[in-house]
Amino acid sequence: MKLWDRKGVKLKREIEDFAVGNETQVDQAIVYYDCIASIAHARMLQKIGVLTSQELSRVVHALKELVSIDRQGSFKIKKEEEDCHTAIENYLAEKLGDIGKKIHAGRSRNDQVAAALRLYEKHELEEVKSSVSLLLSSLKLFQKKNAKVPIPGYTHLRKAMPFSVGGWAQAFIESLQDDLILLENAAKLVDQNPLGSGAGYGVPVIAVDRKLTAKELGFAKVQESPLYVQNSRGKFELVILDAINYVMLDLNKLASDIWLYTSGEFGYFQLPKEFSMGSSMMPQKVNPDVIELLRAKASVVAGYRETVSRIIQGLPSGYHGDFKLTKEPLMRAFEAVNSSLKIAALIIGGLKVDDQRCRAAMTKELYATEEALKLVKQGIPFREAYRKVAESLGSRKQ
Amino acid sequence: MKLWDRKGVKLKREIEDFAVGNETQVDQAIVYYDCIASIAHARMLQKIGVLTSQELSRVVHALKELVSIDRQGSFKIKKEEEDCHTAIENYLAEKLGDIGKKIHAGRSRNDQVAAALRLYEKHELEEVKSSVSLLLSSLKLFQKKNAKVPIPGYTHLRKAMPFSVGGWAQAFIESLQDDLILLENAAKLVDQNPLGSGAGYGVPVIAVDRKLTAKELGFAKVQESPLYVQNSRGKFELVILDAINYVMLDLNKLASDIWLYTSGEFGYFQLPKEFSMGSSMMPQKVNPDVIELLRAKASVVAGYRETVSRIIQGLPSGYHGDFKLTKEPLMRAFEAVNSSLKIAALIIGGLKVDDQRCRAAMTKELYATEEALKLVKQGIPFREAYRKVAESLGSRKQ
Amino acid sequence: MKLWDRKGVKLKREIEDFAVGNETQVDQAIVYYDCIASIAHARMLQKIGVLTSQELSRVVHALKELVSIDRQGSFKIKKEEEDCHTAIENYLAEKLGDIGKKIHAGRSRNDQVAAALRLYEKHELEEVKSSVSLLLSSLKLFQKKNAKVPIPGYTHLRKAMPFSVGGWAQAFIESLQDDLILLENAAKLVDQNPLGSGAGYGVPVIAVDRKLTAKELGFAKVQESPLYVQNSRGKFELVILDAINYVMLDLNKLASDIWLYTSGEFGYFQLPKEFSMGSSMMPQKVNPDVIELLRAKASVVAGYRETVSRIIQGLPSGYHGDFKLTKEPLMRAFEAVNSSLKIAALIIGGLKVDDQRCRAAMTKELYATEEALKLVKQGIPFREAYRKVAESLGSRKQ
Amino acid sequence: MKLWDRKGVKLKREIEDFAVGNETQVDQAIVYYDCIASIAHARMLQKIGVLTSQELSRVVHALKELVSIDRQGSFKIKKEEEDCHTAIENYLAEKLGDIGKKIHAGRSRNDQVAAALRLYEKHELEEVKSSVSLLLSSLKLFQKKNAKVPIPGYTHLRKAMPFSVGGWAQAFIESLQDDLILLENAAKLVDQNPLGSGAGYGVPVIAVDRKLTAKELGFAKVQESPLYVQNSRGKFELVILDAINYVMLDLNKLASDIWLYTSGEFGYFQLPKEFSMGSSMMPQKVNPDVIELLRAKASVVAGYRETVSRIIQGLPSGYHGDFKLTKEPLMRAFEAVNSSLKIAALIIGGLKVDDQRCRAAMTKELYATEEALKLVKQGIPFREAYRKVAESLGSRKQ
Repeated sequence: MKLWDRKGVKLKREIEDFAVGNETQVDQAIVYYDCIASIAHARMLQKIGVLTSQELSRVVHALKELVSIDRQGSFKIKKEEEDCHTAIENYLAEKLGDIGKKIHAGRSRNDQVAAALRLYEKHELEEVKSSVSLLLSSLKLFQKKNAKVPIPGYTHLRKAMPFSVGGWAQAFIESLQDDLILLENAAKLVDQNPLGSGAGYGVPVIAVDRKLTAKELGFAKVQESPLYVQNSRGKFELVILDAINYVMLDLNKLASDIWLYTSGEFGYFQLPKEFSMGSSMMPQKVNPDVIELLRAKASVVAGYRETVSRIIQGLPSGYHGDFKLTKEPLMRAFEAVNSSLKIAALIIGGLKVDDQRCRAAMTKELYATEEALKLVKQGIPFREAYRKVAESLGSRKQ
Repeated sequence: MKLWDRKGVKLKREIEDFAVGNETQVDQAIVYYDCIASIAHARMLQKIGVLTSQELSRVVHALKELVSIDRQGSFKIKKEEEDCHTAIENYLAEKLGDIGKKIHAGRSRNDQVAAALRLYEKHELEEVKSSVSLLLSSLKLFQKKNAKVPIPGYTHLRKAMPFSVGGWAQAFIESLQDDLILLENAAKLVDQNPLGSGAGYGVPVIAVDRKLTAKELGFAKVQESPLYVQNSRGKFELVILDAINYVMLDLNKLASDIWLYTSGEFGYFQLPKEFSMGSSMMPQKVNPDVIELLRAKASVVAGYRETVSRIIQGLPSGYHGDFKLTKEPLMRAFEAVNSSLKIAALIIGGLKVDDQRCRAAMTKELYATEEALKLVKQGIPFREAYRKVAESLGSRKQ
Repeated sequence: MKLWDRKGVKLKREIEDFAVGNETQVDQAIVYYDCIASIAHARMLQKIGVLTSQELSRVVHALKELVSIDRQGSFKIKKEEEDCHTAIENYLAEKLGDIGKKIHAGRSRNDQVAAALRLYEKHELEEVKSSVSLLLSSLKLFQKKNAKVPIPGYTHLRKAMPFSVGGWAQAFIESLQDDLILLENAAKLVDQNPLGSGAGYGVPVIAVDRKLTAKELGFAKVQESPLYVQNSRGKFELVILDAINYVMLDLNKLASDIWLYTSGEFGYFQLPKEFSMGSSMMPQKVNPDVIELLRAKASVVAGYRETVSRIIQGLPSGYHGDFKLTKEPLMRAFEAVNSSLKIAALIIGGLKVDDQRCRAAMTKELYATEEALKLVKQGIPFREAYRKVAESLGSRKQ
Repeated sequence: MKLWDRKGVKLKREIEDFAVGNETQVDQAIVYYDCIASIAHARMLQKIGVLTSQELSRVVHALKELVSIDRQGSFKIKKEEEDCHTAIENYLAEKLGDIGKKIHAGRSRNDQVAAALRLYEKHELEEVKSSVSLLLSSLKLFQKKNAKVPIPGYTHLRKAMPFSVGGWAQAFIESLQDDLILLENAAKLVDQNPLGSGAGYGVPVIAVDRKLTAKELGFAKVQESPLYVQNSRGKFELVILDAINYVMLDLNKLASDIWLYTSGEFGYFQLPKEFSMGSSMMPQKVNPDVIELLRAKASVVAGYRETVSRIIQGLPSGYHGDFKLTKEPLMRAFEAVNSSLKIAALIIGGLKVDDQRCRAAMTKELYATEEALKLVKQGIPFREAYRKVAESLGSRKQ
């Protein structure tokens, strides 16, 4: 039964199929957070007199039971229930009768879903941050081990100046540290309590206490404007996707480097055999599919971001059904970034540096700048020193 | 067992998990097409003497069996098999022993997957075209029924000139007819036989007959350059996604119009009750979620397109593992466009026109251009006529 | 003076600045096409009796004069005129008095701009096609000259099988030939006469002859639905941008290959010195900036496409001011694709193949597939042959 | 003369045209910042003994002169100079001879351009923040003035619950306040000194003092890893573009609302006549072009973001010529967001609220939720109350 069930009106089956889509599966990810938010809401309802203490304790008990059913993977949302919010209210109504029917006083699915989503997002962002930390640890170890191994630094894919494998890893370490800040910023922004904003226009008659639910749920502040709660649907998700995207772009660059450096022509790094795949036709091939897939995941996440950023563009204020379709890309992006970070940590952990080929690559032209600056030390203006060295390199070929 | 199985080397479990991802599920969609292409390949192998007639007939028989197993949904690809191509070869090897091990002579997974994908794509494009036709029928019926009902034509969301409900529908009919041409163009482009191009560099020793497999499989031509076969991975998919995208944008506009015209403020159209959903909090609400989801699907497909177009950008020539991730977005786009077209046909079929509100909206200012042109008929230069009418409309308010 | 000038109402200066933006510059590109379309419109007006023969001849004369003024770069659109359409009508009114004021009978800027744009687009698409042909010629020459030079074919950036420089070029030749078809398809789609559709709702009172203007302007057909004319604003531009985008992606791949192959590590190709830039700090550097910029142009054009495809999403039927902003990205895309194709032709023309390094790269493992297929010839099942060769390659390192 | 001028090698003219493109114009925007950064660099060079005090004072004097020439718009970069960095060094060399030729010791254009860009970005972000503040002031005034005017709150574009014009404005106020935080976060991230990192691999021989230049230029910290300096090219710009994008999406929603509410069908707001444009054909039209252009600017900026985010994807570590093309989209985005915010402030300042139409729109169904919650107050479980009210609303029409 739907929350808005209208007597005598049944949704056309094809319409229901299309409208619900895969939302019943998508919503499984937020059942837990909806229960948590519902408990906070119920506590607030008791404080303002809509539920008695006894009613509250039965509601809380039932919701905790539901949490443990969900943890066992046994709570399934039915298509005719549309979403997890309906399924949870139905569960309560069935378990507790009239008491269950009281839970929705002072809230709408609009603020309810926002609350569950944000709790989910805060949790997932922590996950991403710890996946980043995992990769950072892996990189730091690698950096320490190979700090002094020389490799050519490249610009324009042409040998530029002497560098080190350690220096190469350090660039990613610092980039990921910036990403952590960007993830943290995103987490701070979404840390606003939407509960009590109703459908986007507040809650009349009943004096909902938004600070109380904020405190219960650990939100840093109340998102005051009820309409902004709805207007930030998709916006907050975009903020998160953008933060994830910086990580994906870093992984994309890391993969691009490793792909190049493990090629036969560069040969600075080697992938362990148990990381490499093969060809169905060419017996000699040892292929870095895993590196390429890691690289390509940035494009996959960019697609999720594209979807969310387009969905919210062009819409007037207030809740719209379009927002439903912002949930899945967000969830998939979390999955992609976490698995990508973990595999990247593993790859860095397994990556071998070919000391010999690295050293062999340290050819003379890499030291041209050094030469020029030595002339500067002797008092020759830089531009002149530069030209002198350039000329001495004679007829260079590219 | 993998096709490239290397004795003593086992792929690290986490690497395998990441590298295979959900490809075993994704590939279920092309098992059938791979069997068909394998039959054509086997026939060619017999023609050039790699298989005997007897061997061929056993291979064909086994592949046809596999097709019917697949049709029953009983053919499952195992994770350790990576993809459907491996699973199919394994099936043959298990069934037929040495004969099964002969099937891969003269091909690589690289041309094999391209062949299966293109057969799939050609079939799916036909599906999309018939879904478009379904909507066209629905629109034509609607157009005929409401040909004469007047509604205001709008520019800038302001009343412009008199129009008709029929004229409104006609715009979508013609737009979808153009889309059919664009879909047809896409289908023609991908109609090139990749089989026999191997891993991207042809097939040595064995004289594969590419024209023969083209004919067997109904491809319009052979894609000559073996490297272009691989360079067109993702490109051909992008061509298809672009064609689908025009359809999605038409549906997006159709939904945008219906959303507006079924609002209380416009009121020209009405959605049947069994097409509308409700609110969990507001008892009076009757919401057009289905229209909004239809609208938002354009953003979902745009995300798939974004992924594919990014994956192929920046890559040098030849096959790369990145291409694997172009399959799922394509398949999801096909699913989205077909279901969206079908639901749109249903919506148009159910849409009611409120004749009275339409007529009531035909206010005087809509006829200002007519007035001006009547003056033109009397010999007054248009710009003067325009100004005269504008002045006579007096102090207009927006 | 604006066409819609309202007595006593002056547009606020900041609003005008924002609303006109750089449209006066953008529109310079279509002045010529608007004149041509205006001549056709005038001829039609004479046929249906709105202009006398004498009036027509004066109008045509004045418009032809304007064309030659424009050719000399002396026709400047003023900000207070908003766009070229206003500037042209003003010019006529000033030159011809009442006769000039008659020209706008039976048309709106909405169909007028569509007509000018499509004539412009048809012309520019021809330009792109001849730029593609230029590159094709360059590639064919290169292909012929280097047909037999061997290079390794790569998959996953790992040596795969023997290939040739000619084969490499051939892949781009065939890809660009497909692009020509895609450009041609786009050109055919937009080849529809919008004139006579007015503001999107037809032209009352006056019996405009749309077939006549179609014939005069060389459009293949009349775009029947007046509303579809407006609904295709942006859609037709997207079709063109998509076609351009395939070319840009081909150039992106071409540049990616050349970038790699001219690197010291690969060294198959060399860029002439006069094609290469340098570093401000490192005296030895010879950098392929031009290749990198060619590669990056795909991203620039992708941005233009993104803008246009977003502008048209989410809008209801009919003309909206948003469409104005689709003109500049389209024009910039034409400029980008043409200059990129020309520079690519020049690069291919100048590219030197290092025969020696190419041959030196033809290492043994490239022939492993050949070995396996030779065993197949002797009757060994392919998969077995494959494993035999793999084993004989012994403990391979990646 | 180019900084990397090679005797006897002249860049091919077409290559130069393509490679320089419009960079000489683009770079005009950062001449000032490059001078400032060059002064800091010179001061550091003096501290470490590369320049004498006297040389320093002449360099500083010349650069300050250049700043004032630039302010007057008289400093023009020549095509053969490629960029502003070359033009500035050439200016110094011409003015000061050998002293000018010393300035580039210890830096590369790679860190130099990063320094100039970040100073520019920090300044521009301040500009955006004050443009946001301008709009905030305008909204707050509007909010105060119309705090109590009732309007229907909408969900799904259907009347939902009672709201107020003040509440509507408040949602945008809070959203923009969040945007200010996001802009501030972006500004903090890019506030890292790149100077002294050379071409991406540090500066040998000469002991550059990166803390000193950081302090001189007001950077919050030194960006330690020299390679990360180059790897953050485009990444930092993307962070800024993302922040700008949130603002553009807010303006897009603001424009979408105003567009709807100023339509004849809604009629809650009115645009002043001097903000509205007209039609060339329809004498009665008063069109909100300015609102539509404001709405569409989000798509324009999304295109710039797309370009930058694509350019940096797929590239290995280090500087590449592709990065040059990230400058223009960033600059255009700054221009777009600033002009859009200012026009939005003006629009809000001019927007009139039609009190009468607002009140007339407060129809009965808006109070259904209130009714239900009143029943809750009487002890009826919410879901039951909801159904009671729904039934009492009887045969509802959508």
